[in-house]
Amino acid sequence: MRDRALRAIAECQRIAAMSEESGRITRRFLTPPTHEVHAHLRRRMESLGMMVQVDAAGNLRGLWKPESPSGKRLLLGSHIDTVPDAGAYDGVLGVMLALEWVELARELHLSIPIEVIAFSEEEGVRFGVPFIGSRAAAGRFDPVLLALIDADGVTLDAAIRNFGLDPAQIAAAKIGPDVCGMVEMHIEQGPVLEAESLSVAAVTAIAGQTRAVLEFTGHANHAGTTPMRLRHDALAGAAEWIAAVESLARQSEDLVATVGKLGVTPNASNVISGAVTMSLDLRHERDSARTDAVEKLIEQAIAIATRRGLSLHCMRQVDQPAVPMDEKLTAYLAESIEAAGFPVKHMLSGAGHDAMVMAARVPAAMLFLRSPGGISHHPDETVREEDVEAALLVGRQFLMRLAAEVR
Amino acid sequence: MRDRALRAIAECQRIAAMSEESGRITRRFLTPPTHEVHAHLRRRMESLGMMVQVDAAGNLRGLWKPESPSGKRLLLGSHIDTVPDAGAYDGVLGVMLALEWVELARELHLSIPIEVIAFSEEEGVRFGVPFIGSRAAAGRFDPVLLALIDADGVTLDAAIRNFGLDPAQIAAAKIGPDVCGMVEMHIEQGPVLEAESLSVAAVTAIAGQTRAVLEFTGHANHAGTTPMRLRHDALAGAAEWIAAVESLARQSEDLVATVGKLGVTPNASNVISGAVTMSLDLRHERDSARTDAVEKLIEQAIAIATRRGLSLHCMRQVDQPAVPMDEKLTAYLAESIEAAGFPVKHMLSGAGHDAMVMAARVPAAMLFLRSPGGISHHPDETVREEDVEAALLVGRQFLMRLAAEVR
Repeated sequence: MRDRALRAIAECQRIAAMSEESGRITRRFLTPPTHEVHAHLRRRMESLGMMVQVDAAGNLRGLWKPESPSGKRLLLGSHIDTVPDAGAYDGVLGVMLALEWVELARELHLSIPIEVIAFSEEEGVRFGVPFIGSRAAAGRFDPVLLALIDADGVTLDAAIRNFGLDPAQIAAAKIGPDVCGMVEMHIEQGPVLEAESLSVAAVTAIAGQTRAVLEFTGHANHAGTTPMRLRHDALAGAAEWIAAVESLARQSEDLVATVGKLGVTPNASNVISGAVTMSLDLRHERDSARTDAVEKLIEQAIAIATRRGLSLHCMRQVDQPAVPMDEKLTAYLAESIEAAGFPVKHMLSGAGHDAMVMAARVPAAMLFLRSPGGISHHPDETVREEDVEAALLVGRQFLMRLAAEVR
Repeated sequence: MRDRALRAIAECQRIAAMSEESGRITRRFLTPPTHEVHAHLRRRMESLGMMVQVDAAGNLRGLWKPESPSGKRLLLGSHIDTVPDAGAYDGVLGVMLALEWVELARELHLSIPIEVIAFSEEEGVRFGVPFIGSRAAAGRFDPVLLALIDADGVTLDAAIRNFGLDPAQIAAAKIGPDVCGMVEMHIEQGPVLEAESLSVAAVTAIAGQTRAVLEFTGHANHAGTTPMRLRHDALAGAAEWIAAVESLARQSEDLVATVGKLGVTPNASNVISGAVTMSLDLRHERDSARTDAVEKLIEQAIAIATRRGLSLHCMRQVDQPAVPMDEKLTAYLAESIEAAGFPVKHMLSGAGHDAMVMAARVPAAMLFLRSPGGISHHPDETVREEDVEAALLVGRQFLMRLAAEVR
């Protein structure tokens, strides 16, 4: 298994060189290096005896059918697009592990058909909308999205055509009913597994997420001539609220809340701030806990504004419910982790993934691999060989369980 | 006096039209509209029988000598440059009031010679260094400044030559020993007089000022995947410190402390902040109170960094001691305020002024006029007629006192 793990890692590094930018990994949706990745994956899939096609959303899909197939097919996969200046493993590792699972299934003479999907778009970088690939596969692609325009003025419709595909066929990319479920393997992109010295975890749910922007407006005034008691300092109000956000999240189990983006006006060292915008990103496994927390924080912002003579404007941008993973598939993953000799860890995914979108169409599960340093979306992103090997050992157990079920 | 006040205001509005930009008041140091202002003031000064010259730093200087002069001369004045998109009264009103004082002295047949100086540069906009005019008049102009370069690549040396002046003569701009003192009248640029319903105040000192930049560095991480307990959030640390700055300043009489400028990295709503720079602007009348406060705030920043696992970098940029105004002249101003029938108010100037620089060379005093709304450095900047009239009534009293002293 160590050799397979090394190969999966080497393949990720090879695909990392297929980039829009020399010396950096940047591979946005349907940009030219996507053709290179498709050609490379197609060769590998064909060498495994898989039938390969690219659907109209640009997802590369390889079907492996055992000699005497039984039962519905299993979907495996993740995405092959990246953020700008990315690491080599976010998404791509899930595709390479899927192909290793197919080899394992073939060697074990298991009878389950497997379709590996290299999703074309997950990050949302090129058109500002994420999950374009999995939306299409899940039958959740809204054709209105075809009018989206990238930074170069190219529409999504044109981008698909330029890639040699027909946007009119996107509806046909929808996964049919003959699927038993989907498993996505992905790096954790966070520090939890490393903090607990664990290789892998079964994901219980994708956290629900609220994104909002709050704005305090006060009075910009001279920093030297305005006594403290006569100030309406928007940044001082913002500081108080940021502290309240952190305090609430620290008190609540499994809640994460972040103010990551601040816009200060006029943002000059000798001027009291007249206005400050603050982003809020708040996530929780339970939707009611999330919405309660958001309400509480908005109440606190109102109280701060009232006390300080500021005005408050609040814009809700995203209110996305949590998506639970399939119980049965997740239980299989947990059993497989245990059978492979690893401690069973269940965890929440704070980030969205293709499996979250696919869960609307098929039973979906996720296996997380440890992210050293918790680092992702950065060239320093990496994986440990032993953790990739663990994902393969878990895979063997999982596939055997699934095969036993359908037999 | 009301007519004089109206004339002073009208003159400010007339000079406001002499701008680099149509529809906005922008008159940086030695830009073409400065010639217009000089020509206008020269006509007015000559009509008052004053001898007019422009020194090598671009200061327009008009000398009024009574028929039988006695005693040293009094300097009056303020600056004629502006910030971009300025109001009409910052600086210019002090020059127009000075000319009204000259008329008063003439009508009252007072024997004190008066020199009115329209300082060429106070705001520091064009070359990034303020008080170029008053530095020259105070004999504090460092020739190294001639190498300063403006946004168009023009050196200060060339700017002076282009205006028709000789930089080699700047040393000769220094005020000689035959001066009894200087009075600058200026709008308050803050909300204090308005809050106390007062027209004018005598300034006791220009506050000392510390400017520093502090930087917290933590770890940028995914807002969804990083639990609260594993974060090193630079912005959360910054928020805590900004609250500490405000809290300390609120507890300390006469201290003003402002964080007005924040630089957040990467400043994305779904990323925990990896680094935040924070400006500190802290002012106080007593230097020891100011430096104590700065030390305390740096200690608090260190404590916050230590507790949160952040690193702290601190850069001191300015440490400018307080400049007390001349006691005798300030007492004369206070007596004059009382004699003119107004409540006597003493106050600190939080902002720097030409009188602060001139105080190094001559006894200096300042009279503040109420700023409606505390608004300055903004097109909405204004003055009340009654407050301008008050400054003239105070002027009459002041000049009579000074004349009585030298008689």
